[in-house]
Amino acid sequence: MSTHTKEKYKEFVQRMRRIADVRYANAVLQWDQETYLPPKGAALRGQQMATLSEIAHDLFTDASLGTLLNELSAAKGLTEQEEKNIALTLEDYNKNKKYSSAFVRKMSEATSKAYHAWINARKQNSFRVFEKELDELVQLKKEETQLLGYAAHPYDALLNEYEKGATVQWLDKLFDDLQVPLKALLNKLENKTPPETGFLHQHFDTDAQWKFGLEILKLIGYDFEAGRQDISEHPFTTNFNAHDVRVTTRIDENDFTSMTWSCLHEGGHGLYEQGLPVEAYGLPAGEFCSLGIHESQSRLWENCVGRSREFIAFVLPVMQRYFPQLHSVTARQLFGAVNKVQPSLIRTESDELTYHFHVMIRYQVEKLLMEGSLLPGDIPAYWNELYKKYLGVTVPDDKNGCLQDIHWSHGSFGYFPAYTLGSLYAAQFYHAIKVHAPGLDKAIGNGDFSDIHSWLQTHVYQYGRTFTSDELCNKITGESLRMEYFMDYISDKYNVIY
Amino acid sequence: MSTHTKEKYKEFVQRMRRIADVRYANAVLQWDQETYLPPKGAALRGQQMATLSEIAHDLFTDASLGTLLNELSAAKGLTEQEEKNIALTLEDYNKNKKYSSAFVRKMSEATSKAYHAWINARKQNSFRVFEKELDELVQLKKEETQLLGYAAHPYDALLNEYEKGATVQWLDKLFDDLQVPLKALLNKLENKTPPETGFLHQHFDTDAQWKFGLEILKLIGYDFEAGRQDISEHPFTTNFNAHDVRVTTRIDENDFTSMTWSCLHEGGHGLYEQGLPVEAYGLPAGEFCSLGIHESQSRLWENCVGRSREFIAFVLPVMQRYFPQLHSVTARQLFGAVNKVQPSLIRTESDELTYHFHVMIRYQVEKLLMEGSLLPGDIPAYWNELYKKYLGVTVPDDKNGCLQDIHWSHGSFGYFPAYTLGSLYAAQFYHAIKVHAPGLDKAIGNGDFSDIHSWLQTHVYQYGRTFTSDELCNKITGESLRMEYFMDYISDKYNVIY
Repeated sequence: MSTHTKEKYKEFVQRMRRIADVRYANAVLQWDQETYLPPKGAALRGQQMATLSEIAHDLFTDASLGTLLNELSAAKGLTEQEEKNIALTLEDYNKNKKYSSAFVRKMSEATSKAYHAWINARKQNSFRVFEKELDELVQLKKEETQLLGYAAHPYDALLNEYEKGATVQWLDKLFDDLQVPLKALLNKLENKTPPETGFLHQHFDTDAQWKFGLEILKLIGYDFEAGRQDISEHPFTTNFNAHDVRVTTRIDENDFTSMTWSCLHEGGHGLYEQGLPVEAYGLPAGEFCSLGIHESQSRLWENCVGRSREFIAFVLPVMQRYFPQLHSVTARQLFGAVNKVQPSLIRTESDELTYHFHVMIRYQVEKLLMEGSLLPGDIPAYWNELYKKYLGVTVPDDKNGCLQDIHWSHGSFGYFPAYTLGSLYAAQFYHAIKVHAPGLDKAIGNGDFSDIHSWLQTHVYQYGRTFTSDELCNKITGESLRMEYFMDYISDKYNVIY
Repeated sequence: MSTHTKEKYKEFVQRMRRIADVRYANAVLQWDQETYLPPKGAALRGQQMATLSEIAHDLFTDASLGTLLNELSAAKGLTEQEEKNIALTLEDYNKNKKYSSAFVRKMSEATSKAYHAWINARKQNSFRVFEKELDELVQLKKEETQLLGYAAHPYDALLNEYEKGATVQWLDKLFDDLQVPLKALLNKLENKTPPETGFLHQHFDTDAQWKFGLEILKLIGYDFEAGRQDISEHPFTTNFNAHDVRVTTRIDENDFTSMTWSCLHEGGHGLYEQGLPVEAYGLPAGEFCSLGIHESQSRLWENCVGRSREFIAFVLPVMQRYFPQLHSVTARQLFGAVNKVQPSLIRTESDELTYHFHVMIRYQVEKLLMEGSLLPGDIPAYWNELYKKYLGVTVPDDKNGCLQDIHWSHGSFGYFPAYTLGSLYAAQFYHAIKVHAPGLDKAIGNGDFSDIHSWLQTHVYQYGRTFTSDELCNKITGESLRMEYFMDYISDKYNVIY
């Protein structure tokens, strides 16, 4: 590489780090908004975040950065990783050029308003409190689909933001295919005696839950020197660099399982972020692959590991130290109870099987919103109809219905399919890990997760987003995503329990 | 005002709000750094804060803002407040132009490094751990005095940053004058029987302290809808706008008074920030007057109110609910105990009399550092010598000596004199409040602080920094700062106790 190219690449890195500083500063403001912000601070916080979004956007779409990127794209002598950093950043640059600063600002302000409206709507248990702000966001997102452009369906433009290459056509087929065996398995299980769950429904001290949650995170290797946990309305993971990764949880004093598996879920996200190469801060090589892959990490820890017979056997004695009321519960009982299949209202608390119907419903609603065949005001009625149809449950109110998730209030449309993709990737990856480490089950029973950590570090974390999810999946499992791994995984589990 | 001027003024306001967004975003990052940041996150956090500092500086020193300000300075038809906003901002603009972006960035990175070094130095109880970073900061501050310029003494340039118009010449005289009656009063008290304090030295549950601290803040009217309290190594107040003001405290399980009066102190700062006009966000009219005036607010609540006989009588029963071990303590005993005069090592825990010797020592050290006649490496020895000379105490280690305060690690040189100015202003203002509201003592005994709130709102909060501290003092008390109000106030109090 010539000295000139070397200097130019260095300039590129410096500029990207500076942009990352602004973006991650904004992420700190957002984290604070969802954890510690006093109520009256909301209005000006929204403005502050909008300003940072606009500044980051202005820095990133500066024409001189485009010139630099184009020059480096043509340069010789860069390493493969450097070339990828340039190519991916140029792709982002060209995409970002499609947005005006005014649009970015408007979107940031609208999401901040929508977030507070959603919080209030949940407090008042009324979708109507959220409707106006949601409508404004939906209009902006539709505008965004036009800005970004798409070949077949407007929703494709948004899906692509979270999962490069995902389309309505592909997902329609995937969900159609997946629905059949899921439905068949659900029908089969509904005719069997379900596992006993009565012992889960007791009072669990919130302090004990908080401390147990922290212990769970430590047990799976989450580094508290490079992260922390706090409380928020909706659990999430965020990061300000690989050395400052934050997870949140929420505590329900009548249900410790919600907090526990939420910690495992967010902890999986957190481990991924902590494992990304910190030296590539601000560059594609330092960022997560795709949302589907991110979700594969959370679901691998939450489900493949966290709801396994071996993990349950390992964690039960720890749990009993925090919750003495569980002293007579056996590992077999707990294993059954936390894997009980039961059509229900809340996605985050649903089992691994019916979970995907929740995702399909949200996907359907978003798709229609984006094509304009469903209006925001009609969401509750349509939502409730789909829950009846897919899951056979009656939605009693908005809080347990279409207000349950935070995502729309963040402007995250096109996000949900990644949850199902995550489950499928997780099962496929976990299968590969087990092939690689045949003694894994036994190790997990001893609380030893080192094989998982090292496999994920080598096969997933280290690559950042220098491969697409499909490229990565092929590279590390030898084939593209196949739902059979997931179906095998849950069928095997339910065969033991039911 | 012509439409043109109106439009230009509006543009000015928008630009200032945008700059404020970046600065306050940085304040959020700093608050987070001192409350919740995981240790490994420190390095990149420093970089993120440096980037925001640089961006704010670039926005504020943009030549087009200078043109706008000069144009508006010459415009007709602005209101008096608008004229002040322009004049003060132009003054700031001209001052900021003296700094290069590179200098701003260097300073921000150096303070962030120094902060973490200070934290570690305190942990290891060794000034040497902090020395290198402090030395770097001192060099930068000396460079800053050259950039800013000064008439008589380099330290003047820094003093002026916190208290407009303050000089070494003025402060040398003020401290010399103040020293005489303080020393005389101290000698007098040292010959009398001191109040009993034994009951303060017990174990006080940290949870109870935390809850009591929150209650204290509520009692004095701190608005938790527009603020919060957290824990940090060194208590401080920060704000991201008047609707989001944050105070911190620290808890010592062997001394509940430290936490209690720290809450009153930071609460006083917090009330000031919450009382500033939120609609003037980003403008001088929405900012605090000077550091001396800010300190007058904290010390008014901490001391004039918080250590008064009446407040003690009011708060003791509340205190006893949280700390049953105080059940047999009388108001008279507590009043004496929290006003005991005792030369000691730690400024923030010292009494109202000897406090000022701590300030004078720090002032002396900083003055010599800035003129170059003291080197950072010689601070501990010189510090210990001065403590022996002024206060007659032997400093046992650095943590109880020159490492006790966070300010240097923030690059805050020239800050300390404001603490003494604050006490003097507080006494002078409090005298004026008592003239205005003769029933004040009785009201305080009933926990009614409304006269104080309304006086401060009308006479201090509403003006932002549209007056200098001296102008304000003249406007609301009829004369410039006079130390006699303070000497009368403490002499009266000690006459009752001793």
